[in-house]
Amino acid sequence: MANVEILSVGNELLIGKTLNTNASWMAKRLTALGVNVCRITTVSDNVEEIAAAVNEVLERNSDFLITTGGLGPTFDDKTLEGVARALNVQVAVNEEAFKMVEKKYKTYAAERGLKKLDLTEARLKMARLPNGAKALPNSVGTAPGVLIKRGKTTIVSLPGVPSEMESIFEISLEPLLKKMIGKATFFETSLGVSGVMESDLAPIIDKVMHDNPFVYIKSHPRGRESIPQIELHLSTTAERAGTAKSLVSRSVVQITKIVRARGGKVSRFNANQSLQ
Amino acid sequence: MANVEILSVGNELLIGKTLNTNASWMAKRLTALGVNVCRITTVSDNVEEIAAAVNEVLERNSDFLITTGGLGPTFDDKTLEGVARALNVQVAVNEEAFKMVEKKYKTYAAERGLKKLDLTEARLKMARLPNGAKALPNSVGTAPGVLIKRGKTTIVSLPGVPSEMESIFEISLEPLLKKMIGKATFFETSLGVSGVMESDLAPIIDKVMHDNPFVYIKSHPRGRESIPQIELHLSTTAERAGTAKSLVSRSVVQITKIVRARGGKVSRFNANQSLQ
Repeated sequence: MANVEILSVGNELLIGKTLNTNASWMAKRLTALGVNVCRITTVSDNVEEIAAAVNEVLERNSDFLITTGGLGPTFDDKTLEGVARALNVQVAVNEEAFKMVEKKYKTYAAERGLKKLDLTEARLKMARLPNGAKALPNSVGTAPGVLIKRGKTTIVSLPGVPSEMESIFEISLEPLLKKMIGKATFFETSLGVSGVMESDLAPIIDKVMHDNPFVYIKSHPRGRESIPQIELHLSTTAERAGTAKSLVSRSVVQITKIVRARGGKVSRFNANQSLQ
Repeated sequence: MANVEILSVGNELLIGKTLNTNASWMAKRLTALGVNVCRITTVSDNVEEIAAAVNEVLERNSDFLITTGGLGPTFDDKTLEGVARALNVQVAVNEEAFKMVEKKYKTYAAERGLKKLDLTEARLKMARLPNGAKALPNSVGTAPGVLIKRGKTTIVSLPGVPSEMESIFEISLEPLLKKMIGKATFFETSLGVSGVMESDLAPIIDKVMHDNPFVYIKSHPRGRESIPQIELHLSTTAERAGTAKSLVSRSVVQITKIVRARGGKVSRFNANQSLQ
């Protein structure tokens, strides 16, 4: 299974101004593709911090590193500088990226009824990529995504604006991942358990996971230990969708039997509804 | 300024099932206290991964590491095992923690109309702390928080259930941080700018930050480059609240003047309202 790491860049995440929905969105999509998201890191808009985090991923030999944020026109958009520092390459205007950015400002000028918009330094900045990188088209915004390889690791840098990140992810990254990792399906389901304390469920989960080695089961308390309402999340990844589903189903049957024998109730878990 | 790192533990975060609201909540509270949240890391429920992440924080000599998640009764609650592995100490029943857990189950038994609830292995697990650690009372749930020091770094482990994490943070951690870091106030405000493209704002922001070296300004595009609606977030940390506020105000005045001179509009930013 391919190991993927996510690196979120942005002071707004570290001061709690912005919730990291980008990492969560990508984690969900990547998991659905059958890859293993093994770590998510958030660092500030600081070249040294970004470079250090990229180097750590390279040292861990992860297959993919996806960064978000820091590709824009302002001076504190420093992701590519950080990536270049980690890879020990220069940042320079990339021809493909230049054409993409130039085209965007032609369109923007037309939209604003202007003859032209000069490619100022701030605008040109979005076409400056680490040497050896490939530009990925941004169908929603201005700054292109960036792909660069080093050893075993493919580094893909995406913008921080969610709609731009999602667009480049879907158009450029997803097909690449599908091709590289082959077929894999992630299947998940949640049960709502009430009437059995989480501490009493612990050995039950342990047994069912032992009997079903490919299924991962995790309990999430949604009530209190003394009035237990627990979400049991079961998931697996398999080559065929049918296999993944039947592995999870077998665990559901087993755990339901045991919980009911202990006087507990099991239902489909509905996040929007309190358990009975 | 004290450097704080957050380590979130939980597969549910890495598969995109759960949004990391805990990290965001803490980041906001920590920033308000005047500390610098320098990195947020998310790893899986795996002892080796947790231990590796803890070791990296120790190597970076951060003042504080706050972990969330993985303190509960199930076999995959592995945070303390990971911390102990990193510190090269054993995990054993901690007397204080034992008393806390024992008392909880006496209360739960009474609430459930039972004579007693045995301290099963799963329940006792929540009283097993790394040697040398101190238990922090959990007023909401069962598993105590945990505090342990190594060299310059204080490691505090909090549960993953938000209400429990928040309670221990407020009761045990916040007073400790306030005592350690002294007085500091974080002040922030947001302006809404329209009519000036983000790429044209870039050099303006650069100038204002240069003239106001203690104020950090970041632009967040909320519209499109060609129909720009930009949130400008200004923030600073100072010993006195008055100082922090006046540093930010001076930048607000300067940036407003420049933007208006370029034909742009500046207003108070309201996240729930589209900019005019």
